[in-house]
Amino acid sequence: MKTLLETIKDAESRGVAVGHFNISDMAALKAIVKAATDLQFPVVIGLSEGERNFFGVEEAALIIRNLREKHGLPVYLNADHAYSLESIKQVVEAGFDSVIFDGAKLSLEENIAKTREVVQYVKSVNPGILVEAELGYIGTSSELFTETPAGAAIKEKDLTTVEDAVRFVKETGIDMFAPAVGNIHGMSISIPNPDLNISRIKSIKDAVQIPLVLHGGSGIKDTDFISAAGAGMPLIHINTEIRLAWKEALQKSLTDNPNEVAPYKLLKPSEEAVYEATYKRIKLFAKL
Amino acid sequence: MKTLLETIKDAESRGVAVGHFNISDMAALKAIVKAATDLQFPVVIGLSEGERNFFGVEEAALIIRNLREKHGLPVYLNADHAYSLESIKQVVEAGFDSVIFDGAKLSLEENIAKTREVVQYVKSVNPGILVEAELGYIGTSSELFTETPAGAAIKEKDLTTVEDAVRFVKETGIDMFAPAVGNIHGMSISIPNPDLNISRIKSIKDAVQIPLVLHGGSGIKDTDFISAAGAGMPLIHINTEIRLAWKEALQKSLTDNPNEVAPYKLLKPSEEAVYEATYKRIKLFAKL
Repeated sequence: MKTLLETIKDAESRGVAVGHFNISDMAALKAIVKAATDLQFPVVIGLSEGERNFFGVEEAALIIRNLREKHGLPVYLNADHAYSLESIKQVVEAGFDSVIFDGAKLSLEENIAKTREVVQYVKSVNPGILVEAELGYIGTSSELFTETPAGAAIKEKDLTTVEDAVRFVKETGIDMFAPAVGNIHGMSISIPNPDLNISRIKSIKDAVQIPLVLHGGSGIKDTDFISAAGAGMPLIHINTEIRLAWKEALQKSLTDNPNEVAPYKLLKPSEEAVYEATYKRIKLFAKL
Repeated sequence: MKTLLETIKDAESRGVAVGHFNISDMAALKAIVKAATDLQFPVVIGLSEGERNFFGVEEAALIIRNLREKHGLPVYLNADHAYSLESIKQVVEAGFDSVIFDGAKLSLEENIAKTREVVQYVKSVNPGILVEAELGYIGTSSELFTETPAGAAIKEKDLTTVEDAVRFVKETGIDMFAPAVGNIHGMSISIPNPDLNISRIKSIKDAVQIPLVLHGGSGIKDTDFISAAGAGMPLIHINTEIRLAWKEALQKSLTDNPNEVAPYKLLKPSEEAVYEATYKRIKLFAKL
C-alpha cells in the first residue's frame, strides 16, 4: 500500500489529482469509499474540526485504518483545517495521515512561526504524517453564499505570491501547500466561481517544488480542475458540493416518505447522492 | 470491566433493566453513549440487519470496542435480529457481544432446530458471545402504525406459553430469551400499546431461569417497564421512540436552517433529541 505522500506524488507525476472529500456522517463516508473503490482510485477523506467533533476523531481513524489495513483500500484521512496545536495533537495521536494547520487569518510572520511549531511536533511523533498549510485568505466556510466572502482573494494582486510561497514553505518545512489562486471556500449560488489563475499555480509550483493543494473546489469549472492538476495541484478539496447533494437528497427522502422513521432508510438517498457527486469528481480529477 | 452477561445478571439481581437502543448513524450512537456515560449505567447498542448494512458491521464493532477498551465505558454491541447464519457469522467475526437469531416466523420445530445450530456455531467461535432468540410473533418493524400488526400476539391465548418457553430454551441452549408477553414491535400513533402480562413474564422466568428480554419497548407504559424488569426482564429494547426523536429533530433543523448544508450542524439537534429520549429511558429502567 502506498503512503499518502507516494499517492499524491504519483498523481502529480501523471498530471492528475486525488480528490479530498469531507464527511460528517457514515452515509457520506461509505459513499465516498464506494465511489473510489468502484473507480479503483485513491481518495482522501477529510474532517474539519466541526466534522471531527461530531463524527469522532478516534472513530474516523479506526474506520479508515480498517478499510486500508484489512480491506486494502487506498483511503486516507486528513484533519481538514485545525486551528490549534491541541486539535492537531488529537488527530496525530489517533493516527490521521495528514493535518492542515490553518493560520490563514494570521500575519505571515505568525503563520510561519505557528506552522513551523506544528511541523516540528507532528514530525517528532511520526515523520510519515503530512503537514499542509494554507497561505492567503480564501474564506472559511463550506456553505452556499450569494456574494464573495469579504477578504477572499479573487483579484490577481490578492493571490498568494511566489515570493511569499517560497519563504513560507522553506521556513515552515511543510509537506504540502495550499495557495490562494482564485479559489474560494464554499460555493456560490448566484455568481460563477472565479477562474483559477493557472499561471500563478505553475509559478508557485516551480518555485516551491512540494505538492500544491486546491481548496474550495466546489463550483470551479471542470476545465480549471484539469488545468490546476496539470500545473502541480495533485490534491483537490470538495466539500460544499457533497454537502448540498447530501442535504437535497435527504429533504426529498423525508418528503417522499412521511411515515418512515428509520434513519438508515431516510439517509440512503443521501448516500447515493454523495456517491454520484463523488464518483463524477474522482473520475474527472483522475482523468479516468 | 463486566461482560455483557455479568452486566445483565447484575441488573436482574437488582430488579432493574439495561436499555438496548438501536442506531443507524453516528449521531444516535454518540447520543446514547453520552446518556449512559452521564448516568454511569451500562447500555447495549443494537443494530438490525438494515442498520448494520448501512452503518457497517466492522465499523460498529471497532467503535464499541474502542469505547470499552480504551475509554472504559460499559457499552455493549448486539446484532438485533439476524435471520441467517451468514449474517450471524459476520457479526461474530467482527466481535459483537451478542446476537439475536430471529426465527419467530418459523414453526416451533424449525425455530428450535435453526436456533440450536446458531448457538452451536457462536459458542464454537467464542463462548462469551451471547445468543438470544425470540418465540412468538410480535411484529417485525420498528415503525409507526395505526393498527396492530396482523398476527402480533396481544391476547392472552397468543402469548408465549411457559411450556413452549421451557422446551425452546432447553433444546436450543440460548443465553437470553425474548417471549411474546403483550409487547409489539413498533409504536402505535392512534391506539395505546397493549399492557404487558407481568404474571406470564414471572411464570416464564421462573421456569426458564435465563434472563428474559423485552422487545418492542417503544410505547409501553412506564409502570409496565418497571414491573417487567422486576419480574425478570433485565434487558429492554427501545427503537421506534429513538427513531422518531431523531427524525422530528432533523425535520425541525432543516426547516429552521434553510441555508445550512453541513450535515453535522443539521444533525446536531437529532443527536440532542436521541440523548434526551435515551437518558429518560436509562434512568427509568435503572431506577436512578
